[in-house]
Amino acid sequence: MSKFAVLGHGVVGSGTVELFNMNRELIHKRQGIDLELGYILDIRDFPGLPYSDKFTKNIDDILNDDEVTVVAEVMGGVHPAYDFVLACLNKGKSVCTSNKELVAKKGAELLRAAKEHNCNFMFEASTGGAIPVLRPMHTCLAGNEITRIAGILNGTTNFILTRMIEDDMDFADALKLAQDNGYAEKDPTADIEGHDACRKICILSSLAFGRHVYPEWVHCVGISGITIEDVAYADKAGYSVKLIGSVECVGDKILPMVAPRFVPKSCELSSVSDVFNGIMLYGNGFDQIMFYGKGAGKLPTASAVLGDVIDCAKKSGTDMSGFWEDSADNSFIADYKTQTVRKYIRAAGTDRAKVTTLFGDVRFLSRDSAPSDEVAFITSPMTETDIREKCEKLGQVKSDIRIYNA
Amino acid sequence: MSKFAVLGHGVVGSGTVELFNMNRELIHKRQGIDLELGYILDIRDFPGLPYSDKFTKNIDDILNDDEVTVVAEVMGGVHPAYDFVLACLNKGKSVCTSNKELVAKKGAELLRAAKEHNCNFMFEASTGGAIPVLRPMHTCLAGNEITRIAGILNGTTNFILTRMIEDDMDFADALKLAQDNGYAEKDPTADIEGHDACRKICILSSLAFGRHVYPEWVHCVGISGITIEDVAYADKAGYSVKLIGSVECVGDKILPMVAPRFVPKSCELSSVSDVFNGIMLYGNGFDQIMFYGKGAGKLPTASAVLGDVIDCAKKSGTDMSGFWEDSADNSFIADYKTQTVRKYIRAAGTDRAKVTTLFGDVRFLSRDSAPSDEVAFITSPMTETDIREKCEKLGQVKSDIRIYNA
Repeated sequence: MSKFAVLGHGVVGSGTVELFNMNRELIHKRQGIDLELGYILDIRDFPGLPYSDKFTKNIDDILNDDEVTVVAEVMGGVHPAYDFVLACLNKGKSVCTSNKELVAKKGAELLRAAKEHNCNFMFEASTGGAIPVLRPMHTCLAGNEITRIAGILNGTTNFILTRMIEDDMDFADALKLAQDNGYAEKDPTADIEGHDACRKICILSSLAFGRHVYPEWVHCVGISGITIEDVAYADKAGYSVKLIGSVECVGDKILPMVAPRFVPKSCELSSVSDVFNGIMLYGNGFDQIMFYGKGAGKLPTASAVLGDVIDCAKKSGTDMSGFWEDSADNSFIADYKTQTVRKYIRAAGTDRAKVTTLFGDVRFLSRDSAPSDEVAFITSPMTETDIREKCEKLGQVKSDIRIYNA
Repeated sequence: MSKFAVLGHGVVGSGTVELFNMNRELIHKRQGIDLELGYILDIRDFPGLPYSDKFTKNIDDILNDDEVTVVAEVMGGVHPAYDFVLACLNKGKSVCTSNKELVAKKGAELLRAAKEHNCNFMFEASTGGAIPVLRPMHTCLAGNEITRIAGILNGTTNFILTRMIEDDMDFADALKLAQDNGYAEKDPTADIEGHDACRKICILSSLAFGRHVYPEWVHCVGISGITIEDVAYADKAGYSVKLIGSVECVGDKILPMVAPRFVPKSCELSSVSDVFNGIMLYGNGFDQIMFYGKGAGKLPTASAVLGDVIDCAKKSGTDMSGFWEDSADNSFIADYKTQTVRKYIRAAGTDRAKVTTLFGDVRFLSRDSAPSDEVAFITSPMTETDIREKCEKLGQVKSDIRIYNA
């Protein structure tokens, strides 16, 4: 018998309890482990549930119960989650979390606490929801040097872009549809400005390269500037517009970024649509691998939390988490402005001759019923700084979007 | 220091050594484990290699070296691989293998031997090559009931079908191209008749449902009967033709199968092209997850072998393999002929009226320049037995292909 506790009875917390109750017998039979739900911590009351007797408002009930060896933290936010998680780890209780903000901001510290107390801090649910990616990366793919990661890490923005691509909706209408479907929050800033994807690429980068990458070090561009004109140019040129969280090796530095990209339709990532997530890894042995699935939702997220809980309970007393060191500064982060990139540019009040004079060899794009003074093109590889300088001389630049290097 | 041995210095064996030498320092740094290659077993001589001193022709050198805790078996075939693997496990040495034939035929017995000797038998490389799927399924997804698995499990046949779809090649030309590119063997039977995919779906089924599924219990249809006419009908109707290894729950039984399918283009599996593999899992919590990557090749397969070796070395003395029981008989395998299915049928010497009389409500398909006496259609759901009976009365049935239920 292994006892676990759940901190928070919101969407993910109640989903974790629901999935556990649904599959408990099967888990016992197939995994050989008899898990028991000991406590659910929540400040609210939930009378009338079949497991209402499990609720407590006092974290000490969990901390002081030596039978509880694993704790699922699914409250969200940094406080008080951070204090609770640290207290659990300091007591030698493994913690499994879906809390991307907590991991992106405090991961290195919490991993160290877990190591010091011979327990595990796991967070598969924090990145890609149900999709197994963190554990496979640091176990199954451990024989490789990871050279690049690129992912559609936010389902809300992918839903919005998919509606723009498939239904010719403009951004505002697609956002409203996402809100009406419950995919986007009333205040959608964290999704559409890329902050959510940013936390996830921080976690992936930290795990892949061994040093904590803080969100404020990541160049982050959202999708609120994407128009149906851009989507139309992309489509005709053989691309899909996707919000990509990425990180790659640049010499002895790494370059993490969140930005919309033109993804070639031949690339598997381009077919990841609606609320689905897809995460592509590149390595020197396996070449490329993509993981695809639901990046959010009650039971999908609960699936990842419960998978971590089961593994922690089975391997109690081992140290199997991935690990990374804290970073004193961001000197290992490359400056994106000096890196070579190809970009799609759309501008008004100019012409092709001027584009060629300024940018040299480019690929001009077309779309139906474009105004006569609009030009759209894809540059040759050059630095972001160069592109910006040339754009200033070009005319009214309406959009600039990176090309994904498949 | 952990010492490992490699049995066999063919494509995968030499790739495993190459990848290990390439990434050894990184593995030490990131995984905290100092792996050393102790031996390579091969009956051939390999003079002039930087690691020529590691070769032995005698398995006893490995068996009797107590410092060797992990053995990678990459010889292929059942004999002598089986005897060597069993001997290693009986000595308490963990074994990691890429040998799908060995696992499909002897998996239950070898897993039991590993359990009895407190070591691990792992085989991530046996299914999906580089793609992490077995370990994620029994760890990250352990909180779910797996209800269905469907995968493009053979790169050779997927390459052939992709060329038929994208380049209008007929089967014979596409097969020849695959052979010229080194993707297909001179005798391509094991690939094109589905035997290779069959072994892999046996392994996935056994792991997902806990009982050994032997290849001879699996209904297995290859792709040698697929024509460009079928591919053309599929394309126009919104499908891609793929060879799918699948297993699903049918009441308290399971139904494993290998067969070509019409996969809807909206399904992520349909975009898996060329030599890539894609494996879709369905579960009651995560809903659906797909793993995509290279299913074969020297370094991709080596990546999976080395990932297992690292994990076995790190977790020496634990029992972390997946597990399944042996099966006395196939009474838990459902009879595919009594299960409901929708099928694409193409027939000559008949007409639509006769189709409707026999099959009732169907969806008729069209293609460019079809002969006037050819009909093609998709049936309503009915049993395989019913479909066969009706086909006998229909005329000259040229093709019948299952529809994938996305």
